Amino acid sequence: MDTATLCKVWIGGQWRSATAVGSFSAENPATGKALDAQYPVSDWADVDAALEAATKAFDVMQTLPPSRLADFLNAYADKIESRAAEICKMASLETGYPESPRLKDVELPRTTGQLRKAAVAAVDPSWRLPVVDKACGLASVLEPLGPVVVFGPNNFPLAYNGVSGGDFAAALAAGNPVIAKAHSSHPGTCRLLAECAQAALEATGLPAGAVQMLFGLRREDGTRLAGDRRLGAVAFTGSRVAGMALKAAADAVGKPVFLEMSSVNPVVILPGALAERSSELVDELVSSALMGTGQFCTNPGIIFMVGGAAAESFLAALAARYTAAPCGTLLSRGTQRGLLEGIQALVKAGASVVCGGTVADRPGYAVANTLLRVDARRFMQDAEALQTEAFGNATLMVLADRVEQLPALIACCEGNLTGCIYSARDGRDDADYTAVARVLRPRVGRLLNDKMPTGVAVSPAMNHGGPFPATGHPHFTAVGIPASMRRFTRLACYDNVRPGRLPAILATQS
Amino acid sequence: MDTATLCKVWIGGQWRSATAVGSFSAENPATGKALDAQYPVSDWADVDAALEAATKAFDVMQTLPPSRLADFLNAYADKIESRAAEICKMASLETGYPESPRLKDVELPRTTGQLRKAAVAAVDPSWRLPVVDKACGLASVLEPLGPVVVFGPNNFPLAYNGVSGGDFAAALAAGNPVIAKAHSSHPGTCRLLAECAQAALEATGLPAGAVQMLFGLRREDGTRLAGDRRLGAVAFTGSRVAGMALKAAADAVGKPVFLEMSSVNPVVILPGALAERSSELVDELVSSALMGTGQFCTNPGIIFMVGGAAAESFLAALAARYTAAPCGTLLSRGTQRGLLEGIQALVKAGASVVCGGTVADRPGYAVANTLLRVDARRFMQDAEALQTEAFGNATLMVLADRVEQLPALIACCEGNLTGCIYSARDGRDDADYTAVARVLRPRVGRLLNDKMPTGVAVSPAMNHGGPFPATGHPHFTAVGIPASMRRFTRLACYDNVRPGRLPAILATQS
Repeated sequence: MDTATLCKVWIGGQWRSATAVGSFSAENPATGKALDAQYPVSDWADVDAALEAATKAFDVMQTLPPSRLADFLNAYADKIESRAAEICKMASLETGYPESPRLKDVELPRTTGQLRKAAVAAVDPSWRLPVVDKACGLASVLEPLGPVVVFGPNNFPLAYNGVSGGDFAAALAAGNPVIAKAHSSHPGTCRLLAECAQAALEATGLPAGAVQMLFGLRREDGTRLAGDRRLGAVAFTGSRVAGMALKAAADAVGKPVFLEMSSVNPVVILPGALAERSSELVDELVSSALMGTGQFCTNPGIIFMVGGAAAESFLAALAARYTAAPCGTLLSRGTQRGLLEGIQALVKAGASVVCGGTVADRPGYAVANTLLRVDARRFMQDAEALQTEAFGNATLMVLADRVEQLPALIACCEGNLTGCIYSARDGRDDADYTAVARVLRPRVGRLLNDKMPTGVAVSPAMNHGGPFPATGHPHFTAVGIPASMRRFTRLACYDNVRPGRLPAILATQS
Repeated sequence: MDTATLCKVWIGGQWRSATAVGSFSAENPATGKALDAQYPVSDWADVDAALEAATKAFDVMQTLPPSRLADFLNAYADKIESRAAEICKMASLETGYPESPRLKDVELPRTTGQLRKAAVAAVDPSWRLPVVDKACGLASVLEPLGPVVVFGPNNFPLAYNGVSGGDFAAALAAGNPVIAKAHSSHPGTCRLLAECAQAALEATGLPAGAVQMLFGLRREDGTRLAGDRRLGAVAFTGSRVAGMALKAAADAVGKPVFLEMSSVNPVVILPGALAERSSELVDELVSSALMGTGQFCTNPGIIFMVGGAAAESFLAALAARYTAAPCGTLLSRGTQRGLLEGIQALVKAGASVVCGGTVADRPGYAVANTLLRVDARRFMQDAEALQTEAFGNATLMVLADRVEQLPALIACCEGNLTGCIYSARDGRDDADYTAVARVLRPRVGRLLNDKMPTGVAVSPAMNHGGPFPATGHPHFTAVGIPASMRRFTRLACYDNVRPGRLPAILATQS
């Protein structure tokens, strides 16, 4: 096909014409209008070339001191900041997120902050868990895996972007080349970020294949890539269907694959907390559930409470606030379709719509702020369907008959990134807290008290992970440096290896 | 079926009649004669009952101080020692291994040593990597996963036994109940060990379902178990076919699965080392390759060297020693069949037999000590087939045309547990060492210098792991406490959780 009008792909240090088998453009979700630029869907030849360049880059990267990785990451953060206005303008066009505060004041600083934290961790040997046993002549340490492909999600065009986000920073700082797959709903943002990465690569002299980017792949090439022998690992954030396809391909050849997929993030409000501070809880829930049009992995999608007068007042207040609040722009046509399908699935399984549930009467992609409810009996009858993720500004309330029923309801929950319990400050919920927490804790990656789950601090103590299907492996976190870097390592052991031949990190251990 | 004559299974603290769908007995591999005892192949009902009991036990175990796990592990080690003679006699009958030194003086002390090291690690919080971030109100730590099923291999009836070995010790010490699947070639040994475990459980008051054992499972029940929602993880050591079936079942539901499968453990002998100490190398290789009739995961199965006069002398000396050495008993009829099939696959792919290659003329299961050779061109043409594992006393020599060809040969190697390089003491091989090590290192879990790979020290710096297909995930090790325990944990994070509600391990972190 004619590739002259298509944006180029970034392979082996060069922006070059794709061996395209198709093309796509992004849309402005606030208007539904297509944006001008045309991006290529690559043939396998591009993927193969990227894998070859990454393999060569990895050979070189293994011989470089970690400070070179840190230099690159810091230079990249600087470069992003120097083009911040342009990047945020493009990201806003492609996602509908406001330039300020969301992009410029929150997500961009988070992104550059992650890169700089990863730079610090790149030169810190401790997270690699070096162990030396002189008596046995043994030494072991976590080493990089090889080229990592990163598939970023649609909802964080900067902080989770395949070419600039948390997975990127963790994989690169651990010593691996990254092949980024741009997200189809914000390719222009990906391109600007990749240009910054290129400038930083060139300024700091990392090998050309250390970072690369492709815009689009056919589904079969995506799974072929995930199972390619040259690849070290796969990192993916997005839908369960796409994640499971990559997982199957990687699993079949024993390739590490780290997925962050669906999560409905149960919140349990115990009766004492409700009696004590109902209107405060309404404020917190509205703010967390509708922030960013609910398009967060940790959006509180399902709320468990005990039915009755207090719950009905809470629900009524919540519905009033959902109805009055402006409904935000969704990220894409696909996000709108997914949200409506999610709501329909919940209704089909027995939930009833309290408010919203339909497309909003305004330009672009938007659904009215949606509240649904279902009783405990119904929930337990079809718990799987009633945990369908309705990604966006929709919330399901599950009303128990009595507080003692809550643990049994929670026991029906699948694995989630987070789980919250609100309990009274005066201790009257404590016995119920214990009973609920016992069941909730093993089902979530992060257990919260008296706090909504949105807001994932980049802290060394963070876990942005959890049991399947929230992720593909409950041992690892996608956020939190250095812990997130361990995903992109293998354990390497040296037995009787002559001292001068040990990696520097082990040679310097006492 | 009539279960009166069958050994009982150990479920929920009781030895009870299996809901059997079949039965089997073990054989004495030194004679080929069946042993008396009859063991049940369980129906799913037994598996289901074990899962229920394990789930209940896990609930209780999470509330116990870790010292209780340590008490059990120590009591179990003591109990094994008190019945050592009986256990080693049975294990010798079922495996053909000599009672002494192999079982009584090496494997049994290793087994009890592992249990005691795991006891120490159970009460040591450091390997759980607790992290507290007071400013963010976050704390994270590695917590147990839930019931773990352990499938042990045939070749270590004590130290890797599902009910007493390394995986068992690691899973239990990390806080998980264990459901052990006895190996069909040494069920009597499993039963004696389980009796010791039961005595220790009762003496230390761990819940009844903390350790359980089933003797036989239908294949479909094994995979159903691996994918059961109540299970925390799967640990398996054995053949690639069985391991991959369990992996597929566990992967489909995002369940952690840790496999140790096939490994041919390449050894590279560089020309300088050969010139310097050929007869010493013959001694080392014969000793490592034929020890235990070659039935070790880290048996040196494939040797790379440069062809020529020195290599021919080495080969001739090796063949003479292989022919002169007694050929040991293989573990079972299946092991003998597998070894012969492996040898045939190598021959079919172009290797020629230097010596051995056929069933040995003696009672029981045995194959003549076997040496094969193949040239570099042939190896590169069909590298996959020429890496077929011939588990037992068989060794393939690959002869390169010149030393510069070695990296390209090694680049054809699949993932392995170990890789060794022998180089001259005087430094003349150093450049070749660097070139070979660069390619070998990422393909193995443990890189050795001037040392054969058999002998896996239980050291905190050990890695008994490696890239697929040696294992299912290159981040983890099956040997080495505490590192091996991390496999059986998930990352758990507490966000704004009130201090009195934190797990003890986090509450005491500063």
